[in-house]
Amino acid sequence: MTLSIEQQAEIAAARANPSTTLRPSVAALDAMLFTAIPVLDHGFIRVVDYMGDDAAVVQAARVSYGRGTRKTTEDEGLIRYLMRHYHSTPFEMCEIKYHVKLPIFVARQWIRHRTANVNEYSARYSILDKEFYIPAPENLAVQSADNRQGRGAVLEGDAAAEVLNILRRDAEQTYANYEDMLDESKYGLARELARMNLTLNTYTQWYWKTDLHNLFHFLRLRADAHAQYEIRVYAEAMLETVKAWVPLSFGAFSDYRLGAVTFSAKMLDIIKRMLAGEQVVQPGSGLSKREWNEMMASLGR
Amino acid sequence: MTLSIEQQAEIAAARANPSTTLRPSVAALDAMLFTAIPVLDHGFIRVVDYMGDDAAVVQAARVSYGRGTRKTTEDEGLIRYLMRHYHSTPFEMCEIKYHVKLPIFVARQWIRHRTANVNEYSARYSILDKEFYIPAPENLAVQSADNRQGRGAVLEGDAAAEVLNILRRDAEQTYANYEDMLDESKYGLARELARMNLTLNTYTQWYWKTDLHNLFHFLRLRADAHAQYEIRVYAEAMLETVKAWVPLSFGAFSDYRLGAVTFSAKMLDIIKRMLAGEQVVQPGSGLSKREWNEMMASLGR
Amino acid sequence: MTLSIEQQAEIAAARANPSTTLRPSVAALDAMLFTAIPVLDHGFIRVVDYMGDDAAVVQAARVSYGRGTRKTTEDEGLIRYLMRHYHSTPFEMCEIKYHVKLPIFVARQWIRHRTANVNEYSARYSILDKEFYIPAPENLAVQSADNRQGRGAVLEGDAAAEVLNILRRDAEQTYANYEDMLDESKYGLARELARMNLTLNTYTQWYWKTDLHNLFHFLRLRADAHAQYEIRVYAEAMLETVKAWVPLSFGAFSDYRLGAVTFSAKMLDIIKRMLAGEQVVQPGSGLSKREWNEMMASLGR
Amino acid sequence: MTLSIEQQAEIAAARANPSTTLRPSVAALDAMLFTAIPVLDHGFIRVVDYMGDDAAVVQAARVSYGRGTRKTTEDEGLIRYLMRHYHSTPFEMCEIKYHVKLPIFVARQWIRHRTANVNEYSARYSILDKEFYIPAPENLAVQSADNRQGRGAVLEGDAAAEVLNILRRDAEQTYANYEDMLDESKYGLARELARMNLTLNTYTQWYWKTDLHNLFHFLRLRADAHAQYEIRVYAEAMLETVKAWVPLSFGAFSDYRLGAVTFSAKMLDIIKRMLAGEQVVQPGSGLSKREWNEMMASLGR
Repeated sequence: MTLSIEQQAEIAAARANPSTTLRPSVAALDAMLFTAIPVLDHGFIRVVDYMGDDAAVVQAARVSYGRGTRKTTEDEGLIRYLMRHYHSTPFEMCEIKYHVKLPIFVARQWIRHRTANVNEYSARYSILDKEFYIPAPENLAVQSADNRQGRGAVLEGDAAAEVLNILRRDAEQTYANYEDMLDESKYGLARELARMNLTLNTYTQWYWKTDLHNLFHFLRLRADAHAQYEIRVYAEAMLETVKAWVPLSFGAFSDYRLGAVTFSAKMLDIIKRMLAGEQVVQPGSGLSKREWNEMMASLGR
Repeated sequence: MTLSIEQQAEIAAARANPSTTLRPSVAALDAMLFTAIPVLDHGFIRVVDYMGDDAAVVQAARVSYGRGTRKTTEDEGLIRYLMRHYHSTPFEMCEIKYHVKLPIFVARQWIRHRTANVNEYSARYSILDKEFYIPAPENLAVQSADNRQGRGAVLEGDAAAEVLNILRRDAEQTYANYEDMLDESKYGLARELARMNLTLNTYTQWYWKTDLHNLFHFLRLRADAHAQYEIRVYAEAMLETVKAWVPLSFGAFSDYRLGAVTFSAKMLDIIKRMLAGEQVVQPGSGLSKREWNEMMASLGR
Repeated sequence: MTLSIEQQAEIAAARANPSTTLRPSVAALDAMLFTAIPVLDHGFIRVVDYMGDDAAVVQAARVSYGRGTRKTTEDEGLIRYLMRHYHSTPFEMCEIKYHVKLPIFVARQWIRHRTANVNEYSARYSILDKEFYIPAPENLAVQSADNRQGRGAVLEGDAAAEVLNILRRDAEQTYANYEDMLDESKYGLARELARMNLTLNTYTQWYWKTDLHNLFHFLRLRADAHAQYEIRVYAEAMLETVKAWVPLSFGAFSDYRLGAVTFSAKMLDIIKRMLAGEQVVQPGSGLSKREWNEMMASLGR
Repeated sequence: MTLSIEQQAEIAAARANPSTTLRPSVAALDAMLFTAIPVLDHGFIRVVDYMGDDAAVVQAARVSYGRGTRKTTEDEGLIRYLMRHYHSTPFEMCEIKYHVKLPIFVARQWIRHRTANVNEYSARYSILDKEFYIPAPENLAVQSADNRQGRGAVLEGDAAAEVLNILRRDAEQTYANYEDMLDESKYGLARELARMNLTLNTYTQWYWKTDLHNLFHFLRLRADAHAQYEIRVYAEAMLETVKAWVPLSFGAFSDYRLGAVTFSAKMLDIIKRMLAGEQVVQPGSGLSKREWNEMMASLGR
């Protein structure tokens, strides 16, 4: 993982200059501030700034609902109530900003979350570093046979080594040509054109800022087992920062979102029949085979 | 202006508990934190929290544009460049949260700015305070004759006194009936129903959080001379907080937005002809009389 | 319910002028176009325009997922798959526009849904009609004892009549004074000021346009039993139009959202234990009494 | 430019099935429907659907402003008034949907416009076509010397040919390896991994839907002379469709946005002095040299 020398100097300067503020602070997250958490082979996330805490969620809810409770247990109950009933606006009162280094193909998935603010490194203005994502061998997998968007077994033996060679060689070659085309003593091609020769595993970086409600939405989708591994590891690193930042909200999120399951009207009916002691089987249940299997998996059967 | 006793206690507690943080802080805005600035007869704004400063704008721009400048004069130049060329995303990296008390008819205009987070006091859950906006006599004006959405001359003499009487009497009576309908010993009507009897000058309050770019957009429209007086005074109070918070960005905003004028293609053509010494008059200029007048007003003619 | 004479003429003209288009049309929704569906005592909704249909959802999904299926049964399966797995973007490819007449206190709830386009009648420019919502006697209820934001029993006898009298009298009086203050022969007060004297049950109207995904989100919250009656009836009228417009998407929405239930991680664990034959009771279950009751209600126990 | 056989069949089917509707239609845009307009070497845009027309803008404005005007000249005046005074919500009442084929590096710029709905071809599910953007020789330019994000002179002679060779060869090689890695008889690598080997000039495609206000915003930035050529040509093709769709709104947009110039408070002051006959020069003007030059360029001096 690489931070530029300028970035490291900036971080060191920031760490050396604590300030006093009347704003609410969270010691556990402050301790993480500016510290880059490594992700993948060259990527990272680091928290750059934040606003608010669990108490800010409660405070906003109290404006809305006129609840004047004070004790932590009551705060936790209120936060859980808000989460359970999808009262999302109090969670929007907290904001967090990350600096993220990530492969371009991951950035293209990530950016689809529109309710966020983004400043990305511009390859029109500047030259991208020579860094590309090469998967670790254990993350190199064949296409899943039964899931059009998933992975199957790990690629083994020579095949794995050959694929890694291809990825590395193509990235190195296209990057070398990128540099050549930019070289003023050779072609001096405009940066906005030369960049098109780079491969999608080239690393980019951005500042990404969002509120807690939208961050939870992002994490629910991207920390999910169905998310692509290469974005899931970013989400998992972010989960740790959220846990440090807003432990009560994080707890409610874990229970009511991450670990929760939604059953359709038809599924709910089947559960009721099963609880009444009936033996229900897929044929005739009104569920497709696929849905039935999804449901049974949720119920651990 | 009234803050509830609980709110005052909460503010006092916050002021008594400064914390140390690695986050960037702005002393001038910290000094304003939690201090309610009076607006209208019972309203206020107060800054509850903020994230980022002028340096955060520069920092985000440097990620985008790879500019490593350090000196304040260079920072100012970069900020002015960003503002002039509508590079808005770096300004989105700063965030601010206000607690606002305002009449409902003002809240209805304000809420039309959709890119913000809001938690409003809920009259389904709680009982609204007995506070309504009664204009100061100097703000009581007749309908403008030439502007369908504006005010003309100030209402004078008996007329003004009578209008103020009507407003006060109707607000008091509808509020008294609101209380009566809620009174469990009388009707015990559901709060979500009783509130419909209140007049639009009743005060409500909310937490309102937005980023600096969208705040500038709000301020440009609402601090404008064409905005209704009752929302403009809120915008003007907020301008002071922004000036304390991000002086460089505020300076660029003042020059390139607040004090700027946009001329249409046709108008620009006329200016060129005038600068070339030609006498141009409205008939035959291609501008309607109304546009011509707007243009001449902008040019101070 | 009242449409102005101009609005009626406009509607009649539109109905008399069908056009031919290559765009996808939905006969069942076209038949509803421009027809105002009454809601509450003076309100209505009417569909003004729409874009797309069930096939547009499938078409967009096929771009995303490269699926070339054609048969209706396969389309339905795909739509159900998208809904079940929260693949929301294909549903954003359909758009609908309503003209709605509604009381101001309902409009204030409604406008909190930010991802929509709105043009509201402006009381700065124009004079609001003399129309206010007076509940039907069967919708006049006391405050709920156990739900801070709900209604309890219906108000009966003299109490109901008296409340209706209060509401009617206050609305009529404040409106009469609104007219008086506007009257140029009397005060000629600016419209933007006079409007503050109106009560929150005064009717306003707007054009409201949103995409199918966000409409579903709105309907899930507002057609819910916990929504306030006065907004729920609007949502229910809209459900009928959506059913006519996109029957397959509507079916998936009914099954996977409207009739669905989400169980938390803790609740799911309890269901598994119950399915395994265990007798589980609230004390010691890890759920609060309130959560336990919510869960049992969902399971019909 | 290539549409798949399935896409062509779909388009032919749609063109063969006009329907009758009560919705407003625009004959000039209907005539363009489903017709792909070529952009770059393999790209295109085509209008897939639309909602509303100039009259819908007027209709929405009349709800807001209670203006009952009817004549076309009055409609045009109202539309120009709305555009001039930044009353943007009536323009949000029109919606349009495009199918676009574009290089990935263009898609990455485009997606930064967040207020739109997008369904992109997914390379997790499907295999991208073997199509990449290779600039025409006249669009191959060196880096601008004075603009960090621009192009300078056209690359000539052997240098141009060599650059084109590099781009073509690298794209072909990385694509061939992409195919190899996907090949089940060789490696069978998961699609979500193999795609990372593609270069940024590979074509992707998406459905993109937005409202007229946000489309104008997109077009103002992307049809601008400072936009990168490869996105500007898409914007220019779209301008033609907007002109056919909403000619009055397009006219107002051309005059008040595309051809308009904004002068800062300082610049305005200088213009006033110049109009008063004063000779103003840059030194001492309060403008930087850069700003001065920008201003003089706008004034055609």
